[in-house]
Amino acid sequence: MPPNITLKHLASQLGLSVTTVSRALGGFEDVSATTRERVQAYASEVGYKPNQSARRLKTGRTSSVGYIMNGAQGDFRDQFNTRLLVALGQALHDAAPEHDLIVTTVPEDRDELDTYKRFIDGGKVDSFVVARTRIQDPRVDFLLDSGIPFVTHGRTGRASEHDWVDINAADGFMRATRHLIGLGHRNILFLNFFSDLYTAVERETGYLQAMHDAGLAPSSRHCPHGYASAYQVAHEALSGANAPTAFVCASDIFAYGVMEAVSACGHTPGKDIAIIGADNLPPQMYRQPSLSTLDISFETVSQALIELVLAPQDGAPRHRCFDYDLLLRDTTA
Amino acid sequence: MPPNITLKHLASQLGLSVTTVSRALGGFEDVSATTRERVQAYASEVGYKPNQSARRLKTGRTSSVGYIMNGAQGDFRDQFNTRLLVALGQALHDAAPEHDLIVTTVPEDRDELDTYKRFIDGGKVDSFVVARTRIQDPRVDFLLDSGIPFVTHGRTGRASEHDWVDINAADGFMRATRHLIGLGHRNILFLNFFSDLYTAVERETGYLQAMHDAGLAPSSRHCPHGYASAYQVAHEALSGANAPTAFVCASDIFAYGVMEAVSACGHTPGKDIAIIGADNLPPQMYRQPSLSTLDISFETVSQALIELVLAPQDGAPRHRCFDYDLLLRDTTA
Repeated sequence: MPPNITLKHLASQLGLSVTTVSRALGGFEDVSATTRERVQAYASEVGYKPNQSARRLKTGRTSSVGYIMNGAQGDFRDQFNTRLLVALGQALHDAAPEHDLIVTTVPEDRDELDTYKRFIDGGKVDSFVVARTRIQDPRVDFLLDSGIPFVTHGRTGRASEHDWVDINAADGFMRATRHLIGLGHRNILFLNFFSDLYTAVERETGYLQAMHDAGLAPSSRHCPHGYASAYQVAHEALSGANAPTAFVCASDIFAYGVMEAVSACGHTPGKDIAIIGADNLPPQMYRQPSLSTLDISFETVSQALIELVLAPQDGAPRHRCFDYDLLLRDTTA
Repeated sequence: MPPNITLKHLASQLGLSVTTVSRALGGFEDVSATTRERVQAYASEVGYKPNQSARRLKTGRTSSVGYIMNGAQGDFRDQFNTRLLVALGQALHDAAPEHDLIVTTVPEDRDELDTYKRFIDGGKVDSFVVARTRIQDPRVDFLLDSGIPFVTHGRTGRASEHDWVDINAADGFMRATRHLIGLGHRNILFLNFFSDLYTAVERETGYLQAMHDAGLAPSSRHCPHGYASAYQVAHEALSGANAPTAFVCASDIFAYGVMEAVSACGHTPGKDIAIIGADNLPPQMYRQPSLSTLDISFETVSQALIELVLAPQDGAPRHRCFDYDLLLRDTTA
């Protein structure tokens, strides 16, 4: 028999379209039973390689790591997601060239657990990376029950029960806040994520510790993900009485919104008003002044996530924790 | 038997971890053969539902549409990709709530066809959307041979053989260029994609037609995807002799680079130098002046792509072509 029989060859021999042949072999019901049988018989006769799903069933591996974004954690337009996805994809290709990171989104009004279930039931992935973890995280509850390997980016209330990789945000935000205090700032506003996120509490802890140690009154605001909400909160704060002279931001995305608000209020970021962000997300455009930030290498974090997710084990859960670097640039001049 | 036996239940009854049970049922070889047999026997005894891959094999459907990005067409950081992915995901969820758009990337130094092959062989998707089509597109050659349904966003040299959705870019760019000529511009530089992309040739055709009709000398430059390359090309052009007074850009990403270069050269976009982009990609930050652009609804295009990809057929290939709207904003004031 020919070494490499293609669908095209089958189709031409059978006088059918390749789509019909493909769907007949796949057992799709939009091809008549007679045609399905005819195609399957001929494919078997000429030694066409068997259905690939059957082959996968035998090996039990799909060679894929899943990453599911729900509406609330942002979608493909969110820079944290896109930076993490690029680094995760690269780390996976480096560590296991035959593996794929497969990514999908869930609209905000749908239950993301249905998507996890479909990915597991459909055999699409053999593990998951779960990001932007919440303290009470239904994804973690679901995945622990399902038994499929997963690693979280960020801790949860059940951190002792699962593998995770995280950043020591409490320490990072304490150092960032202390730096601003050292520059002479006394009225420092903290723009944080909502406190269902594990890291929001960590971030706040660090900020509060530094303010407390210096005997200063803390002031925090929670913002929805995104640039515009931070712009609005900062604009209001700067326009009111007792305006802050410095901002600590849970994310660079917030920090860019603050920078724009500072400019809109007639101040110069870094000269009149100091700003520190987090995660070192590059601006889409060239931007002056440059933003001071808590930096963590997405590559380092992603390599750790991929290392754990590719080697699931039954022993005690494994944990990796990295430190932020405080990168001082123009906005803390 | 209990209506809903979970892995957790099996694990607790067998005195094993859920991971071990899950991997035993999946046939993974890191679980000993003895344990695998014991778990499988018990699961069968208590009526645990059969392996999901087997179930999928029977139905022949995976309920997923694939979208694979290779390095050359940009990754998750590319705004065209992210806008299209968000709209495609929404259109798919609206049309078929149980379906998922699954997305992956291929590093630039790898063969993207290996990834298509893995997705098909692994039964991960039942169709593909293929974007940023080239005139000679190996993905299209491969998919036509494979027989799996797919729809392209953009035509190819084999457009008559496959389903596609496209935008009439020749007409759009002709109208954009004519508008600039009507404003009195004579020296209009066109920043285009590389000409292996089908749409690059379409875009250039429209620009050349308008310049030719007006008896003006055309001048085009090809840029790699991204903001920085357009900045550099525009900066050089504006600094040289016979500097252009207007730019037509194949993408808003290029146009934002041009705006920045225009400002860096001491001009005001829209006042001294006119700019028209394409695809109406919103800037990440608030931005004045606002960019004039050729607008097409990603939602409309995505709905058409999803409609075709969800209903593969054996008849003549189906084609949908949309027109650009010329949105005049500040940069053509």
